[in-house]
Amino acid sequence: MLLITVLIPQFRGFFRGIKMKKAVILLSGGLDSITCLAIAKQQGYECYAMSFRYGQRHTIELDKATEIAKKMKVKEHIIVDIDLRKFGGSALTEDIAVPKHKKNDKVEANIPITYVPARNTIFLSFALGWAEVLKAYNIFIGVNSVDYSGYPDCRPEYIQAYEKMANLATREGVEGRKIKIDTPLLKLTKGEIIQKGISLGVDYSLTITCYDPVNGKSCGKCDSCLLRLKGFKEAGIKDPIQYVD
Amino acid sequence: MLLITVLIPQFRGFFRGIKMKKAVILLSGGLDSITCLAIAKQQGYECYAMSFRYGQRHTIELDKATEIAKKMKVKEHIIVDIDLRKFGGSALTEDIAVPKHKKNDKVEANIPITYVPARNTIFLSFALGWAEVLKAYNIFIGVNSVDYSGYPDCRPEYIQAYEKMANLATREGVEGRKIKIDTPLLKLTKGEIIQKGISLGVDYSLTITCYDPVNGKSCGKCDSCLLRLKGFKEAGIKDPIQYVD
Repeated sequence: MLLITVLIPQFRGFFRGIKMKKAVILLSGGLDSITCLAIAKQQGYECYAMSFRYGQRHTIELDKATEIAKKMKVKEHIIVDIDLRKFGGSALTEDIAVPKHKKNDKVEANIPITYVPARNTIFLSFALGWAEVLKAYNIFIGVNSVDYSGYPDCRPEYIQAYEKMANLATREGVEGRKIKIDTPLLKLTKGEIIQKGISLGVDYSLTITCYDPVNGKSCGKCDSCLLRLKGFKEAGIKDPIQYVD
Repeated sequence: MLLITVLIPQFRGFFRGIKMKKAVILLSGGLDSITCLAIAKQQGYECYAMSFRYGQRHTIELDKATEIAKKMKVKEHIIVDIDLRKFGGSALTEDIAVPKHKKNDKVEANIPITYVPARNTIFLSFALGWAEVLKAYNIFIGVNSVDYSGYPDCRPEYIQAYEKMANLATREGVEGRKIKIDTPLLKLTKGEIIQKGISLGVDYSLTITCYDPVNGKSCGKCDSCLLRLKGFKEAGIKDPIQYVD
């Protein structure tokens, strides 16, 4: 076989052609990104996972991302060190209290204090750089505009504008290969995301969602926990992770 | 005065109104970014300079940026640590030889090996995050499409697409304040940039441009040195920095 592919150029092309296409997946260790990864794998991509140590208040999510990357057999997982605390501005990176809700509280509709300035823009930009080096033309990000809780950088119009910019920013764009920002969760409710993941065999016990966990257990009271719990309730599935009470 | 401003709301508005408008300036320690900073100052901005330790082969440029920030009295200068080497792909961050030219060689027209994937996109994204925290609505970047030497992320269409994305990415965009990516050097030749800088009193001895300096002296042979030397020649001014020979 090797001999044939070396000798006959057409065969070389053929075997290059069936090489798996690559995708970069932003992997936070949360419920959305693990589902995104499962979808990318189902679509036949060779997956390269990227996580960030960005000065977040807790790093359990990075341990979770590492475990997920291993168990879901991604080709490579890198954790990029960046320090968003240098310019501050969010309850997720600074010593500002994460808002807690009582049971049945509604999640706020405005831009919340937990919003990190330009976070998705920064994350996507690193993914774009890595994609360019890997010759990957797809970047998966688990943004969601249904339960997005007021984050400007989770809206469809933002993603479209990012994709357009990305295609002008890179060699690929200049050379005519199209880079795509894949957002398979964009229009799903949290319940639908969980149902999709379960249908793909996702093990949600590997994930963490809480903004403010205590001894590895989720608080059950922050915006993020409330959305997660609501999602599992909608999906009719028991959340497999542990909560404080 | 304090009493008046505290007591009379209109006065408070008036004094807020004459507060200097803020701008974030990407400052590399090179010829273009110092000129950009001088232009932003001339336009009346309170300047916040941002540099990056991005795994570049040499860090003299960060010392230069620090000195420039101090001498040109920026309000604040931060150096953000990021590691672009994690995904490699450029002669500026990996152990790939920087191409050297002989005298009178033309600088290559294609995308060069010194191109760092998604670098400007990553830098602008951090600037965007800081701008959002500072409530600055202007980001200055010294990109240039005349001598841009084949970098996709130095073209006007890229900057326009970035600005559009930035306005969808942030609170400011959502709340209707327009963020602007200022590129005052975009259509100037290197000679015109230097003339502009000189007219604003820029001290170019504070800068470094070389991709591959030896003991603090510039090589005079890399793409970047060749463009700089050509620029000073065009401007009819002697380059005040030291070269290897």
